[in-house]
Amino acid sequence: MMRIAYVNGRYVPHADAAVSVEDRGYQFADGVYEVATFYNGILVDGGLHIDRLLRSLSELGIPQPLSSRAALQHVISETIRRNGRANGYIYVQVTRGVASRDHVYKRGMRPSLVVTVSREKKVQAKEIQNGTEVITRPDIRWLRRDIKSIALLPNVLLKNEATVLGKREIWLTDENGYICEGAVSNAYIITKKGVLVTREEGVHLLSGIVRHRVLALAREAGIKVEERAFTAKEAESAAEAFLSSSTGHIVPVVRVNDKQLGDGKVGATFKQLFALYVDSIEVDTGYRIWTV
Amino acid sequence: MMRIAYVNGRYVPHADAAVSVEDRGYQFADGVYEVATFYNGILVDGGLHIDRLLRSLSELGIPQPLSSRAALQHVISETIRRNGRANGYIYVQVTRGVASRDHVYKRGMRPSLVVTVSREKKVQAKEIQNGTEVITRPDIRWLRRDIKSIALLPNVLLKNEATVLGKREIWLTDENGYICEGAVSNAYIITKKGVLVTREEGVHLLSGIVRHRVLALAREAGIKVEERAFTAKEAESAAEAFLSSSTGHIVPVVRVNDKQLGDGKVGATFKQLFALYVDSIEVDTGYRIWTV
Repeated sequence: MMRIAYVNGRYVPHADAAVSVEDRGYQFADGVYEVATFYNGILVDGGLHIDRLLRSLSELGIPQPLSSRAALQHVISETIRRNGRANGYIYVQVTRGVASRDHVYKRGMRPSLVVTVSREKKVQAKEIQNGTEVITRPDIRWLRRDIKSIALLPNVLLKNEATVLGKREIWLTDENGYICEGAVSNAYIITKKGVLVTREEGVHLLSGIVRHRVLALAREAGIKVEERAFTAKEAESAAEAFLSSSTGHIVPVVRVNDKQLGDGKVGATFKQLFALYVDSIEVDTGYRIWTV
Repeated sequence: MMRIAYVNGRYVPHADAAVSVEDRGYQFADGVYEVATFYNGILVDGGLHIDRLLRSLSELGIPQPLSSRAALQHVISETIRRNGRANGYIYVQVTRGVASRDHVYKRGMRPSLVVTVSREKKVQAKEIQNGTEVITRPDIRWLRRDIKSIALLPNVLLKNEATVLGKREIWLTDENGYICEGAVSNAYIITKKGVLVTREEGVHLLSGIVRHRVLALAREAGIKVEERAFTAKEAESAAEAFLSSSTGHIVPVVRVNDKQLGDGKVGATFKQLFALYVDSIEVDTGYRIWTV
């Protein structure tokens, strides 16, 4: 089946999906995006992704791209349907629109909307079974990290640095040495006392959709959760750690800055959370992202 | 004459100039740009703009988009020629290229190159004669401000804030309270002792092409120049101030944070520098950007 993209009112072959060179997304990174997985055609936390998209737009003063939230949901569903794919993920990008290049934008511009569909990113057995490594670095990003903007150049550079060094992710520390989140994911540790710690929400990090799910599952399971700042040093001496993202779900971390956590194996708390997480996705979509 | 753009090897009508939705410039702001004026078909400091473009690319690990510097110069000249316009400005954008969306990029990608031409932005008599106002704000941008990247969302927000408040520009202060530069221009003050002060180069600001020209002209004219940090407070009590950018040239500032500088009129040092600046552009291009 041909891959189809939605671009500003039209469904076109993915290979032909194009925007003007004067789209403000191209010249100014003046736009926002969402990535969400779907299984059996059902978006995981689709409502939360749309909420977050609309919040990002609102923070930038970009109007909704379509007449209503329902219209946006329809375009996403229709793009999934036309791609004839049961499992995969969507990418939704909204920019302020097309105009002669000028930092100053005019009121009443028509936003651009692009929706694409990609194949499922399978959970990596090696990562789940053996765990992954992260390193920490000072955060070089702009100060509104709560907005899911397309101004991702710093994230690109950081994530590529991690990859070149053979690490899964870079965790970013603020000016006071506290970890905010990763370049492309949220960051968590589990203390030796079994407390799940992740940074509280605010302008310093993106409010992760998987983060919401994981924290809810942890609390339901009786795991103590603390949303607070923690340093790289605290992470290096944690019992366990993990990261989360919409397409990567949750991934265990067994080394931070080359310091082994615990016995260097994937820990019991992560295993418990991962099992709960996999079940919760199955409840929502009827699809198991992982079977042992 | 029809407006023509260069896009990845082809000269096309400006209205048809388009790029893939998976150009990394659109999805990740993974690219850089230059804006340069031309008069009588001659680029002002064209060589310096190309130097800076190549430096920005190098800092991001993006290869040159064409086989040689000469080839790049040729495309720019040819785009100007095809637009049949004697005076105006060029916009050159280079991104890492087109690929399936992934923060991690592959080696050997072919960069995208777009060149457009716009009509001359005339020097505004009102600004030159009456001066303009700026305000200061904490800098929210990423920490590599020396790279002329297209991740301009913070600059867009800041410049629009200035415009909404009726100010010409926002000058941005670092974590120590020192002014780096403006959202879209470099920042200068002239002290009561007649010293021209502007922030020294570094990762905190863009190395402005007009900045180079102005500092050289000032030094030749015997004006003392200090490249050093200065605070918003020092700016508010300066004798004069001004800003510079490639399409705006140099523009006098008579109020900083609503504090009037001197007698609130455009000062003698600015007038002297502006006359030298206008003459220097005429020497290079045969065109006077300003006549009284």
